[in-house]
Formats: sequence, C-alpha cells, structure tokens
Amino acid sequence: METLPALRPQKIADPDHDILDLFAERWSPRAFADRPVRPEKIRRMLEAARWTMSSYNEQPWRYAVASRHENADEYERLLHCLSDGNQEWARTAPVLMMSFYKTTFSHNGHENQAAPHDVGAASAALTFQATAMDLFVHQMAGIKKDVIRETYDVPDDFEPMAGLAVGYLGDPERLPDGRRDAERSPRSRKPLDGFVFGEDWDAPAALVTDE
Amino acid sequence: METLPALRPQKIADPDHDILDLFAERWSPRAFADRPVRPEKIRRMLEAARWTMSSYNEQPWRYAVASRHENADEYERLLHCLSDGNQEWARTAPVLMMSFYKTTFSHNGHENQAAPHDVGAASAALTFQATAMDLFVHQMAGIKKDVIRETYDVPDDFEPMAGLAVGYLGDPERLPDGRRDAERSPRSRKPLDGFVFGEDWDAPAALVTDE
Repeated sequence: METLPALRPQKIADPDHDILDLFAERWSPRAFADRPVRPEKIRRMLEAARWTMSSYNEQPWRYAVASRHENADEYERLLHCLSDGNQEWARTAPVLMMSFYKTTFSHNGHENQAAPHDVGAASAALTFQATAMDLFVHQMAGIKKDVIRETYDVPDDFEPMAGLAVGYLGDPERLPDGRRDAERSPRSRKPLDGFVFGEDWDAPAALVTDE
Repeated sequence: METLPALRPQKIADPDHDILDLFAERWSPRAFADRPVRPEKIRRMLEAARWTMSSYNEQPWRYAVASRHENADEYERLLHCLSDGNQEWARTAPVLMMSFYKTTFSHNGHENQAAPHDVGAASAALTFQATAMDLFVHQMAGIKKDVIRETYDVPDDFEPMAGLAVGYLGDPERLPDGRRDAERSPRSRKPLDGFVFGEDWDAPAALVTDE
C-alpha cells in the first residue's frame, strides 16, 4: 500500500475570500493510490448526495457504483463505459461510478429541465463528503453513452451524465506520459468579477468590486 | 430584527450513514428573516462556487446578484425574473441571485453538454458555504426566461438556469397561506437502494444492501 500525503500543497486553492477548507482542498486528480476504499465510506458519499436539493424533490439522480476490490468484473464493465482517453488514467482509481438523471418528473411526466443541474449538485455533495474523508473524485464528461445504455439496459427516460473516479491520492508516476504535469500544476479560476454581475450582463456586480 | 434559531430541528436530516453536518442541516426554506446579509458573506458564497470542478475547467457558471439592502431597484428587477408563484415567497429573502450557464466551450466553440450539471455543482458549493455561515438558500427552477433575457440582455450562448433566494431563516407566518406547512414538515428522501445500482439497472448495488 502506498503511503502518500492526502494533500498536495500546490493544489490547495488560494481563495480571495474565506471558504471552507473542503472547497479549497478538493481537486480532480488522475493518479489514484492502489488502496481500497471501505464500503462504508462509499455509502457515506452516496448518503451526502441523497440529501441534496432538487426541483420538486424529484431526486432525479441515479448512480452505478463499482469497486475493484469488491467486484473486479463489475469494475471492468463500468471502466469500459468511459471514453478511451479517460480509461487510460481512470483505471488507477479503485472505485468508479456513473451518474444518470431522470429526464421527466415522476409526479406529472413532464420534462424536468433542472435534472442535469440537480445531479450536478448531488455529485458535488458526494465529492465534498469524499474530501472530508481524504478521498478524491474526478468527474468525466467523456463517456460512451451507447455502451452505457447497452451495458446497464438504461430506461428511455434516463440519461447518462458523467463518470466518477474515486480513491485516495496516488503517485503521478503511475500515469501515462503527458498526464503527469496536470497533477502538479496549480489550480486556476476566473476572479469573482469574471462571473458575477449586478445591473448589466457586462458589468461586474458592485458587491464584488466595492470591497 | 427578528431573532430566530438558525436551525429548525425537524428539518435536520436523519441520515442512514454519517455525513457532514452541513449536508444534514441544509434545507430550502421559503420564509426568510428581514435581516441583511453582509456583502462579505455573499462574496464567500460566490468564492465557494468559484472553486468548483467543471468540464475542461470551463467554469460555465455566471450569477446575477442583488441585495435588497444594498440596491432595492436591482433587487426588484431580479425578483420579477422569477415565476409569479415564486415571487410570492422569495420576496422575503434579502438577497436574490440568478444562475446562468454558457452553452458552448470557450476553447473550441463546441456544445458543452456538462454545463447545466456544472452550474448545479457550483450552486451546491455556494449553498453549502451558506449553510456553514447560518445562511439558507432556496433554488427555483420556476423562472421567466424571456423576462430574464430582456432584463439582462443575455448573450445567445448563455442560458438562464435557476433563481436562488438567500438569507437567514425567518418566521413561517410571513408567508402566504398554503406556504407554511412545508416550512415545518420533515425532509424526506429515497433510501440509497432506491438510486444506487451495481450490475443491473433494477437491482440495488450489493454495496448498499450488504452491510
């Protein structure tokens, strides 16, 4: 079992305003340690997703979950639902998940336009709960939707959303060439005045410029 | 200024597995206190959103923000972007926001299918940061997209996503009739075996049934 620090200093955000440590410490690694994740920890991540908010409390999210240490066959099936590029590195993760959302409301059958948004919120809660347990999650939009539909016989009113690689932080040397630099580079984001406006679309909110 | 407890006991989740307090304590009230939210707290919420994960680090989220105590005109403009039903109760909130997402990737102009999902994650982080500061957020899918586009002159490659009412917990008696019961009823969710599967779509994952 590898013994590596849970945090990589250059990956800790340098926020302009005080935020919870778990938002600053979370990042999306590609190299995971070959260390099992205890099933109770996986349940705790899913429990955090469970209590997330959703439009009409529809809870449109579904998750396929596979742990390599618990069931290698299920893990391989899920791994092959990812794009080829993502399979290259995601195979270092001991746990894989796939998120889905229900496209219609259960109470009236109408289209639920908030469903992708709401599964995004649920997966965020899952991810932050992981951070609190020294686990990391890397989500992937690169998935094979046709393979997923066939593999899991997905009903027509559900849509695959994203893959999730889950585990403890690993050694970047486990990754193929060309995948290692991103494991060590600092995280970057637009400043608040790049995405928060008040009166007009093109003008930052006074709230974020007048400090 | 009202003085009310930050938490309402029956609204605290009773999780089946141990999760962070902020996931258990978060809920979506409709009655907010007439108490200003300090601008620095609003910035801290947006800062939490800022550091969220997104596909290709696109950060597709944008937020319009209006505080009634800072700028009543901007607040009214944003209030009128909500559905009539939501305006009824959201006007008790001292701060309103509107989330948007960019529909295309900035690096190649292709459609970004993960954008609604990613703004959902950002708004979740914003919401949990609020919880950590005794603030509450209630998101609304019920918004007037045409009014929003006209009010903010929204570019074609952006889409309005959800309204957010933000503030401290208030007295349900401030709400219109028919809106009060939900403020006092317990929160409910499907159990884990209702949304987590392993091998087959219709069978819960062994991981959530074998404990």
